[in-house]
Amino acid sequence: MPRVLVINGPNLNLLGEREPGIYGDLSLDGINRSLSDLGRELGLEIEFFQSNHEGELVDAVQKSRGRVAAILINPGAYTHTSIALRDAFLAVKLPFVEVHLSNVHARESFRRQSYLSDVARGVVAGFGPESYRLGLRAIAAFLKEK
Amino acid sequence: MPRVLVINGPNLNLLGEREPGIYGDLSLDGINRSLSDLGRELGLEIEFFQSNHEGELVDAVQKSRGRVAAILINPGAYTHTSIALRDAFLAVKLPFVEVHLSNVHARESFRRQSYLSDVARGVVAGFGPESYRLGLRAIAAFLKEK
Amino acid sequence: MPRVLVINGPNLNLLGEREPGIYGDLSLDGINRSLSDLGRELGLEIEFFQSNHEGELVDAVQKSRGRVAAILINPGAYTHTSIALRDAFLAVKLPFVEVHLSNVHARESFRRQSYLSDVARGVVAGFGPESYRLGLRAIAAFLKEK
Amino acid sequence: MPRVLVINGPNLNLLGEREPGIYGDLSLDGINRSLSDLGRELGLEIEFFQSNHEGELVDAVQKSRGRVAAILINPGAYTHTSIALRDAFLAVKLPFVEVHLSNVHARESFRRQSYLSDVARGVVAGFGPESYRLGLRAIAAFLKEK
Amino acid sequence: MPRVLVINGPNLNLLGEREPGIYGDLSLDGINRSLSDLGRELGLEIEFFQSNHEGELVDAVQKSRGRVAAILINPGAYTHTSIALRDAFLAVKLPFVEVHLSNVHARESFRRQSYLSDVARGVVAGFGPESYRLGLRAIAAFLKEK
Amino acid sequence: MPRVLVINGPNLNLLGEREPGIYGDLSLDGINRSLSDLGRELGLEIEFFQSNHEGELVDAVQKSRGRVAAILINPGAYTHTSIALRDAFLAVKLPFVEVHLSNVHARESFRRQSYLSDVARGVVAGFGPESYRLGLRAIAAFLKEK
Amino acid sequence: MPRVLVINGPNLNLLGEREPGIYGDLSLDGINRSLSDLGRELGLEIEFFQSNHEGELVDAVQKSRGRVAAILINPGAYTHTSIALRDAFLAVKLPFVEVHLSNVHARESFRRQSYLSDVARGVVAGFGPESYRLGLRAIAAFLKEK
Amino acid sequence: MPRVLVINGPNLNLLGEREPGIYGDLSLDGINRSLSDLGRELGLEIEFFQSNHEGELVDAVQKSRGRVAAILINPGAYTHTSIALRDAFLAVKLPFVEVHLSNVHARESFRRQSYLSDVARGVVAGFGPESYRLGLRAIAAFLKEK
Amino acid sequence: MPRVLVINGPNLNLLGEREPGIYGDLSLDGINRSLSDLGRELGLEIEFFQSNHEGELVDAVQKSRGRVAAILINPGAYTHTSIALRDAFLAVKLPFVEVHLSNVHARESFRRQSYLSDVARGVVAGFGPESYRLGLRAIAAFLKEK
Amino acid sequence: MPRVLVINGPNLNLLGEREPGIYGDLSLDGINRSLSDLGRELGLEIEFFQSNHEGELVDAVQKSRGRVAAILINPGAYTHTSIALRDAFLAVKLPFVEVHLSNVHARESFRRQSYLSDVARGVVAGFGPESYRLGLRAIAAFLKEK
Amino acid sequence: MPRVLVINGPNLNLLGEREPGIYGDLSLDGINRSLSDLGRELGLEIEFFQSNHEGELVDAVQKSRGRVAAILINPGAYTHTSIALRDAFLAVKLPFVEVHLSNVHARESFRRQSYLSDVARGVVAGFGPESYRLGLRAIAAFLKEK
Amino acid sequence: MPRVLVINGPNLNLLGEREPGIYGDLSLDGINRSLSDLGRELGLEIEFFQSNHEGELVDAVQKSRGRVAAILINPGAYTHTSIALRDAFLAVKLPFVEVHLSNVHARESFRRQSYLSDVARGVVAGFGPESYRLGLRAIAAFLKEK
Repeated sequence: MPRVLVINGPNLNLLGEREPGIYGDLSLDGINRSLSDLGRELGLEIEFFQSNHEGELVDAVQKSRGRVAAILINPGAYTHTSIALRDAFLAVKLPFVEVHLSNVHARESFRRQSYLSDVARGVVAGFGPESYRLGLRAIAAFLKEK
Repeated sequence: MPRVLVINGPNLNLLGEREPGIYGDLSLDGINRSLSDLGRELGLEIEFFQSNHEGELVDAVQKSRGRVAAILINPGAYTHTSIALRDAFLAVKLPFVEVHLSNVHARESFRRQSYLSDVARGVVAGFGPESYRLGLRAIAAFLKEK
Repeated sequence: MPRVLVINGPNLNLLGEREPGIYGDLSLDGINRSLSDLGRELGLEIEFFQSNHEGELVDAVQKSRGRVAAILINPGAYTHTSIALRDAFLAVKLPFVEVHLSNVHARESFRRQSYLSDVARGVVAGFGPESYRLGLRAIAAFLKEK
Repeated sequence: MPRVLVINGPNLNLLGEREPGIYGDLSLDGINRSLSDLGRELGLEIEFFQSNHEGELVDAVQKSRGRVAAILINPGAYTHTSIALRDAFLAVKLPFVEVHLSNVHARESFRRQSYLSDVARGVVAGFGPESYRLGLRAIAAFLKEK
Repeated sequence: MPRVLVINGPNLNLLGEREPGIYGDLSLDGINRSLSDLGRELGLEIEFFQSNHEGELVDAVQKSRGRVAAILINPGAYTHTSIALRDAFLAVKLPFVEVHLSNVHARESFRRQSYLSDVARGVVAGFGPESYRLGLRAIAAFLKEK
Repeated sequence: MPRVLVINGPNLNLLGEREPGIYGDLSLDGINRSLSDLGRELGLEIEFFQSNHEGELVDAVQKSRGRVAAILINPGAYTHTSIALRDAFLAVKLPFVEVHLSNVHARESFRRQSYLSDVARGVVAGFGPESYRLGLRAIAAFLKEK
Repeated sequence: MPRVLVINGPNLNLLGEREPGIYGDLSLDGINRSLSDLGRELGLEIEFFQSNHEGELVDAVQKSRGRVAAILINPGAYTHTSIALRDAFLAVKLPFVEVHLSNVHARESFRRQSYLSDVARGVVAGFGPESYRLGLRAIAAFLKEK
Repeated sequence: MPRVLVINGPNLNLLGEREPGIYGDLSLDGINRSLSDLGRELGLEIEFFQSNHEGELVDAVQKSRGRVAAILINPGAYTHTSIALRDAFLAVKLPFVEVHLSNVHARESFRRQSYLSDVARGVVAGFGPESYRLGLRAIAAFLKEK
Repeated sequence: MPRVLVINGPNLNLLGEREPGIYGDLSLDGINRSLSDLGRELGLEIEFFQSNHEGELVDAVQKSRGRVAAILINPGAYTHTSIALRDAFLAVKLPFVEVHLSNVHARESFRRQSYLSDVARGVVAGFGPESYRLGLRAIAAFLKEK
Repeated sequence: MPRVLVINGPNLNLLGEREPGIYGDLSLDGINRSLSDLGRELGLEIEFFQSNHEGELVDAVQKSRGRVAAILINPGAYTHTSIALRDAFLAVKLPFVEVHLSNVHARESFRRQSYLSDVARGVVAGFGPESYRLGLRAIAAFLKEK
Repeated sequence: MPRVLVINGPNLNLLGEREPGIYGDLSLDGINRSLSDLGRELGLEIEFFQSNHEGELVDAVQKSRGRVAAILINPGAYTHTSIALRDAFLAVKLPFVEVHLSNVHARESFRRQSYLSDVARGVVAGFGPESYRLGLRAIAAFLKEK
Repeated sequence: MPRVLVINGPNLNLLGEREPGIYGDLSLDGINRSLSDLGRELGLEIEFFQSNHEGELVDAVQKSRGRVAAILINPGAYTHTSIALRDAFLAVKLPFVEVHLSNVHARESFRRQSYLSDVARGVVAGFGPESYRLGLRAIAAFLKEK
C-alpha cells in the first residue's frame, strides 16, 4: 500500500480557530482524520507532518525520499516565500500536489505568486478542507496510472 | 437532482488530437462520458457545452441562470483574455469551478494570469482529465453543504 | 433627422437583473425607451444593437458606415480587451461616445484601461442609466455644431 | 433651490486664449454664463470659483460643506497630482462630478491618472464646454433621485 | 498541388476603404486576386477566409488540419489579444506565416506584442499588400524544402 | 525651554469632523491642547501651525530656522506629493518627526510613498491622536540626548 | 495587570555590538530593562522573546494567544520577507505594534516593504531604543481605551 | 529692449544658506545682480520673481504673457511634481529655459523626472549660479535669431 | 539599374559555421551569391558589406547616401543595442528593410526589442536565408512603385 | 593558523544525490574533504556547518565572530530570500565569499537576485565543487594581504 | 592657455545635412570654427575629435589625460548606450560637460536615459549649435574657479 | 599544452591608474605576468588581448576558434551592453569564464545585468587581480576534466 505524506506549513496548526471566515471551522486534526479515512478507501497509507519552521519542512521533504510515493502539501505562507522548499522537492524528485484552503487568487496580490506550483503535479485551491481530499484523490489517480 | 453545466472553451474540441504531450490523449467525448458516469455516482445531472467563440460562452453562462446549480468550466485561452466571461459569471451569480488540464504555472508566463480565478469558488489545474473529475467532486461537495 | 446607433456590449442584456448594486435596476429595454424619448426631443432617430460577441459588435460598427451620424457605445468588458473594436471605429471614422453605467475608476484596476477612450469623442462614466442620456446629449451637441 | 458649486482649477482662467486647438475658444466667463442659464432651467443655483492654487481649491471644497448640495469640478492639472484635493472631498463627503474639456485619454500618458475619479460620482471628458453642461445635468439628475 | 489557406482577421474586409494612409488603397479582393495569380506561378492552390469573429478564425484554423499545407494569416487586431488563435495553431501544428500591411513597430505600443509571432515560421510586416505576396513566397520556399 | 513647532498639513483642520472612522473624533484643537500639556510635562514650549497650502507649509518650515529646536509634522496628503516640503527640511536642517493619525500602510497604495520619511528622524503612524504625543516624546528624547 | 510580549527578530540579540552607527550602542538587555521599568510605570507586565528563527517567532506569536493583551515586535529582517509571521498575527488576532531602531526608509530599498505594517495597529521607526519605549506607550494607550 | 522674467521656485530664496555643498554659497540676490549685469551686456531687461507657492508661480507665468519675451526658470522641486506649471507654459506659449544649480542626474532618482523639460526650449543643469547665466545667454541667442 | 547595399552585422560572417540549428548551414557567401542572382532577375545591382564593428556599420550607412537606392540590413546583435545605427538611417533618409534569419520572437526576450524596426520600411524574420531574398523583393517592389 | 568556516545552506546536504545534471555527483562530504586538503595546503584550518534552517545559519554566522577569520558560504536558496542572513554578516563584519555550484545566471530568473552578493567580498559561481575550492583560494589570498 | 577637447559622437559628422528640422543647418565644421573663435575669446585652446566608433571615442578620452584641462562632448547616440564611455571618463577623472543639439526630453523615451549625465559636471541641451557654445562657457567658468 | 586566451575589455588598459579605490593598483601588465606564471604552473599557454572596441573584441573571439581551448574574459563595460559579444561566444562555442575585478553587485544597478554570464561556464567577481587567477584555475580544472 503506497504511502502519502501530508505536509502542512505555518499557522495551519491553528485551523478551526484561525480566521474561520477564510479558512473554515474544521481543525487540522479533523481534516487529517478525514484524509486517513479517504486514504483507506483509496488504498493509500497516510502520514502527517506540520511545522511553522521552513527548515523543518525542508527536512521533512528530504526525509520522505524512498519512504513515500507522493506528497500532499499545503505550504501556507511559505508558498510565496520559500525557494528552499522548492529546491527540496526538486532534489527528492517526488511527485507532489499543492493545495490551499482559501482561494489564493481572491486575496492579497502577493499570495498569487507561488514558488511551488510550476514544479508541482498540479494545484487545488479554494474548496476549504475539501481541497485536501481532492488533492489526495489526484495523487491516488496518478499513482494508479503508473 | 441538481444540474451541472460543463463548459469547454476554445480548442478543447480537439482534445486527444491536440498536443498530447501537454493535454493527454483522451478526447473531449471521453472526458464527458467519464463525467456523466461520475455525475450519476454523485447524484448530479450533467450537461455539456463547447465553443471556440467567446460570445457563445458568454451566452451559455447567461442562459444557465435558473437552470443549473453550478458550472464546471475549462475556459482554455479565454481564461487569460476574457473579462466578458468574468462579467457573465458575476452577472448570473452561479457558483463555478475553474479547471485546467495542464499545469498553467509551468507554461508561458501569460498563462499565469486568470480573469476568472478570483471570482471562482476554486481552481483545479494540472491533472489532465482528472482535473475535471476533481472539479465535479468539488461542486458536489459544496452543493451538498448548502 | 440624423440617426444615432446605440451599441451595448456583453452582459448588458442582463441589466436590471445583473449586480443591481453596481449597475442599477433599470433594464436595457427601459434605458432604450428613455433614449428613444430623449432622441425625439433632441431631433435624433435612435437605433439599438446589443451583442455578447466581439465579432458582431465589430460587424455592427462596420455596417453603420454611411447609415448613421454617430454611435453611442457602452462596450462593457470589451472596453478593456478589444483592439478589434478600436480598429473598427478607426476604419469607419464615425464619431462616437463611450459611456459606462458604473464608475470604472472605482473598480478592479484592469477596468481603468480602455482601448477606445483615446479615439472616442469623449467619455461619460458613473451615472447609471443617466450616463447614456448624457452621452446622447453630447452627440446631439456636436452634431449640431457641424 | 439646491446650490451647486462649480470649481475650476489651474490655468482654466485662460480659457478661450489658451491652446484653442485643445480647449476651444469659449472663455471661462462664457461657460459660466451658460451654466447659470442651464442651472435656472434645471432648478439649481450655481456659484463659481477658480484658482491656480491647490490650497485655495482645498479651502473652497472645505468651505462648501453645509452650503452646497454638490460640486462640479474641472480640477485641471491638479487632477493628476493633488491628493490634498482628494482628501478634501473625502472629508466633506459632498457628491461631486469631475469634468474635462479635452479627452484626457488622448494626451500625455500622465494625464490618464486621476486622484479624484474613483471618489467622484462620475466623470465627463472630451466634449469641450459641453462637458460642464453634461456634468451639471448629471448633478441635477442624482439630486432629484434623493 | 499543395493548398495554402489565406486568413484575414477583423476589419481587413474594409481594406481600400479603411485608413488608406496606413493600409493602402487596394481592396481585399484585389489582394486575393494577386495572391491567386502568384499562387499559380508558385504551384500553390490558394483559399481565402476572412472574419471579424475570433471564434470563426479559430474554427477556420482547426478545420484546415489535413486539408492545407500551410496558412498565411494577417490576424489584424487579434494578433495582440488572441491566445485562442495561438492555441489553435499549436493544436493543428500547421506551419504558418504572419503578415501585416503596416509596420506594427511604428504604431501604438500595444501593437508591438504578438501572441502568434513566436510560434509562427516567420513574420513579414510593413510592405502593404506586398507583405502578403512575400509571405506566400516564404511558404512556397519552405514547402519546397521538405 | 526648547521650542517645538507642530505643523499640520491639508485637511487636518477638519479633524473630528472628517472621516471619524479613519481619523478619530478628536478635533485639531483638542489634539493641540493635549500636546501643550504634554509639552509642559516634558519641558518643551509648543507652537502650532496648520495650512492647506503647500507653499505656506514650506514658508513655515523656512521661518522656523533659528527659532525652534525641532518640528513635529503631520504632512497629510503632501507626504506623498511634496518634494518642496522635503527640500525645505533639507534646507533648514532642523530635526523633525513625521506622524500620521491613520495607518498609512493599510490604505490606498499611493499613501505608502513618502517624500519625507527618509530625511526625517523617525516616523510614527497609526495610533490616532496618540501618534502626535508619541512623536513629541521622541523629540523630547533626542533633544535631551544632545 | 495586562501582559505585553516584546518580540525581537533576527540579529537583534547582537544589539550594541552590531553596526552601532545604525543601531546604537545599547544592548538588548539594556533595552529590555528599560522596557520593564517603563512597563511598571504604565501598569503593564512585560515578557521578552528573541529568536533568529522565523518558525520560532511564529510559534511565539501563536502561543501568546489568550496569555497576553498585546505584542510589541521588532521583526528585524523578517519584516520584509515573512508572510508566515503576518499570518500568525492574523490568526491570533492580537493587537501589535511594529517598531524599528533605524529609519528603514533611509536604507536599502528592500527595507521599505513590510509584510506586517498594514495589519499592525501602528508603526514606530527611527528613534533607536526609544522606538521600543514609544511603542510600549502606544500599547498602553490603546489598552486603556478599551 | 526685450524683457526676460527670471522665476525661482521653492526654497531658492534660501540660496547661500541652504546645503552649500550642493547649491553653492552665493545668495539669490547675488545671482540676480549678476544676471542684471549680464542682461545689460546682452541687451535684455531682467525682472525677478520667487515664490514657494506653486499657485503663485502659475500666476506669474500667466501674467507675463504679452509683457516679456522669454522666461528663465529654476522650478526647484516643482520641476518634478507640477503639471500646473507645465500647463501654464503651454497656455502662454512663451519660450522658456529650465535651469538647475545642481546636477539633477546625480541625486535622488525622483529628481530625474521633469514635467517641464520636454516643453522647454532647452535645459542647463549642474553649473551652480553659472547655470542661470548660461540660460540667459541661451535666451539672448534665440531672441536674436527671430 | 538601381543599386542596393546589403549590410550584415556582427557574427554573420560566421554563417554556416555558427549554430546551424538556429541559423542554417548556408554560408554568407552562399547567401550573397543567391542575392546577386536574384538582383539580376529583379533589375537591381547588389553590393555587400559586413562588419563586426558598430562604428563601421554606421560609416557604411553614411557613405551609401547618394550612391544606393535602398539598403537591406541584417543588423544582428546591433538590432537590439545600437541607437547609433538607427540615427545613421534617420540621417541618410534611405529606405531600408530589416531582415533576420531566425525568428527573433522565439528566442531570448531581449531579442524582441529593435531600435530599427519602427524606422524601417518593413521587417522580415524567421525564414533563414530566404529572409534576405524576400527582403530584396520587398525593396524591388517599393523602388518600382516610385 | 587562521580558521575558515564553510557554511552550506538548504538542500546542499543532498549533494551527489540531488539533480546531478545541475549540481554534479560529488557528495558534500567529498567536497568538504577536498576543502580540508586544500586548506592544509593554503595554511588554513577549515570548519564545516550545514543546515536547512535559515535561523540556524544566522546563529552559525553570529557564533563565528571572534572565532574565525573568514566565511565561505554557499547559501543555496536563502541567497535569494534571506535578508536575515545578510544582516548577520553585516552584524559580525567578517569577510565572506559567496559560492554557487551551478551558474545561477542560467536558471530561473528569481535566482539572479542575491541578498548577499553586494556585501560579500566576492562571488564565484558555475564551476561545480571547484567553485568552493576557488572561493577558499580567494579567502587565502585576501587573508594573506592583510 | 588651458586646452579643451571637443568630442562629437556618431552621426554628428553629418550635421547640416542630417534632419535639419531637429539638428539645424549648421555643419560640424561651422560649429567647430565658432568654438575656436569663442575659445580664443575665453582664453582656451580648442581641439576637435569626431568618430562614429564607440571604441575610438573611448580611446580619445583615455589619451586626453594629462593633455587637456576639460572635455566638451556631444556623445550622440552613445549617450544612451555606452557604459564604456562612462567608464573612460571615470578612469581619466577629467571634468567634462555633456551637450546636445536637440531637446532630448522631447524625443523618443529611450533618449531620456544617459549613462554620462550623472558623472558629468553638467548638461546643456536643446539650443542647437548654441548648446556647444554654452558648454564651452561653462568649462571656462569652472576652470577659472580653480 | 592547451592555450588560453585572456581578453580584457574597455578601459582595462588603464588598470593601476584608473580608480585604484575600486580596481586596485596593479597594472594590466602586472596581472598578465602573474597569469603567465600561473599558466606555466597549471600547464597552460596564455595569450593576451585588450581593446576598447566592441568590434575588435568580437573579432578576437571569432579568431580564437580552433586556436585556443578556452577564453578568460573581463568584458568590462561591454558585460552590460554587448549582445554582439554574447553572440560571438555562442558562435564559436568555446568555453569561457567571465571575471571582474570589482564586486559588480555593490555598484550602480546597471552593472548587475550581464549579457554573458548565463552562457559562460562560470563567473568570478570581486577579488581584484586575484579574480583573474581564480578564473584561470577554473579553466585549468575543467580542461583537465575533459
